[in-house]
Amino acid sequence: MKRVVIVGGTHGNELGGIYLHRLWKQAPESFTGYPFKVEHWLGNPGATAACRRYLDQDLNRSFVSSDLKNPDLAAYEAQRAKVLAHELRDVDFLFDLHNTTSNMGLCLILSRAGVLEDPLMLQLCAHLAQDPDVHVYTNPDAPADSPYLPAVARRDITVEVGPMAHGTLHAELFFKTRALIDKALAYLAAWERGAAEKITGSLTVYTQLRNVDYPRTPTGDLAGMVHPSVQGRDFEAVEPGAPLFIDFAGKEIAYEGGETVWPVFVNEQAYYEKRFAMSLTRKLEVPL
Amino acid sequence: MKRVVIVGGTHGNELGGIYLHRLWKQAPESFTGYPFKVEHWLGNPGATAACRRYLDQDLNRSFVSSDLKNPDLAAYEAQRAKVLAHELRDVDFLFDLHNTTSNMGLCLILSRAGVLEDPLMLQLCAHLAQDPDVHVYTNPDAPADSPYLPAVARRDITVEVGPMAHGTLHAELFFKTRALIDKALAYLAAWERGAAEKITGSLTVYTQLRNVDYPRTPTGDLAGMVHPSVQGRDFEAVEPGAPLFIDFAGKEIAYEGGETVWPVFVNEQAYYEKRFAMSLTRKLEVPL
Repeated sequence: MKRVVIVGGTHGNELGGIYLHRLWKQAPESFTGYPFKVEHWLGNPGATAACRRYLDQDLNRSFVSSDLKNPDLAAYEAQRAKVLAHELRDVDFLFDLHNTTSNMGLCLILSRAGVLEDPLMLQLCAHLAQDPDVHVYTNPDAPADSPYLPAVARRDITVEVGPMAHGTLHAELFFKTRALIDKALAYLAAWERGAAEKITGSLTVYTQLRNVDYPRTPTGDLAGMVHPSVQGRDFEAVEPGAPLFIDFAGKEIAYEGGETVWPVFVNEQAYYEKRFAMSLTRKLEVPL
Repeated sequence: MKRVVIVGGTHGNELGGIYLHRLWKQAPESFTGYPFKVEHWLGNPGATAACRRYLDQDLNRSFVSSDLKNPDLAAYEAQRAKVLAHELRDVDFLFDLHNTTSNMGLCLILSRAGVLEDPLMLQLCAHLAQDPDVHVYTNPDAPADSPYLPAVARRDITVEVGPMAHGTLHAELFFKTRALIDKALAYLAAWERGAAEKITGSLTVYTQLRNVDYPRTPTGDLAGMVHPSVQGRDFEAVEPGAPLFIDFAGKEIAYEGGETVWPVFVNEQAYYEKRFAMSLTRKLEVPL
């Protein structure tokens, strides 16, 4: 590996990564001593200046190859995606730092097909997941032509940190994120030197089943909320028949699926507009 | 009392009061049986439709009398303030429902000079504050010419409910808010009938001392965050010399005042733009 990049501010109101970027800018010595170059980038400078998730469209859905090749797209984020896809085209490993209003702790999101067959990715995640705050979430059906920013690199992890309100900072989570990145870089360096600790056994991975929308009225308005027994309980099991939502009059709405699921991104603010209340996952043990 | 009004959505992204308003609209029988008329109003319909705090300016700072009289103001909220000031001019009691990212539970905010000499207000607050989730916060220096929406009524309480991210719903807090309003209306009805339970002893009130900004760089950017020992701990004592903030490198910044304070509105998202990180209060026992 020659080039490792950390991106903050892919969404302009997720302040954790944005202020880590600013901190590292003032302390360039943070990243010396590694056997690869470490850079940090601000994902969406326009949205960051406005403290909004995005200006025209979600930057983290702007990297499909046909869009990157289309010279006529107007959106600010379409421009920024082209810039980043060019500037970051030879990156070996990319960490994309996000924040969420969901109680996801430090969640490592792997959105690349086949990633669970990559020994480095498995070992790195297992190494980081020794911390009980860290969970691994993956989408086995991720499209090969990814819309996500970090897919421009050869390998990537999206680090999703919460719970915290967008447009705010949270000291404890800020320092935990910094420590996670330092630990990940140290592990990558050890891997490059052939000195990485190898973990045996298995890695717990939450794999995407499907997104679930809120209950809706016939006209599309919200007809309910996340049930109190699920709110704030990302990565905790929900059994078939257990309540998932509750309507405004207090009537419970059960999870009607046939298998135990583990919700993540529970009640994330930014996903109200995407029309999902949570992602349901299956808990797997992946052999190391 | 002839007319009691509950307002939700004075800020368009504080969904608790907005969805209570919608619920009550579908269940008009909720408010029968009181010895006064109970209405519910949507504070800022434009901002609610956009799911933003406001469109042009903060509606809850738009009620100064000179602004209400000024026919030339352009802002959407200047229009809405004029409408509400007219429509709600003869309201006897107004509850204004807000949400906050701060951990304020169910906070009753009294922003009217002399309110602590009003027996009804003291008894109502004492009655509601029997619930340990409920705190009373007051500003003894509130201007007589108030910029706040609820000041259009003869008496008012702003109900500040959190923690929850703006633009989201939180079931437990939603139902607690509804129960608080029901309890308050029942108490007002008993008061009108001369049958209200009178509480003796004292009422704990947190009175405003001053707002405190985040640490800033010389150019005005954030230079620190709320300290982990204060984050999420609204209404908990901070002693002189105790850490209040922490900078991005991890250096603690102490509270340098000379008296014990109880912070509220700790790290509220909407107050980043108003440049305050928290309000410091003094804890008082007000005799009943």
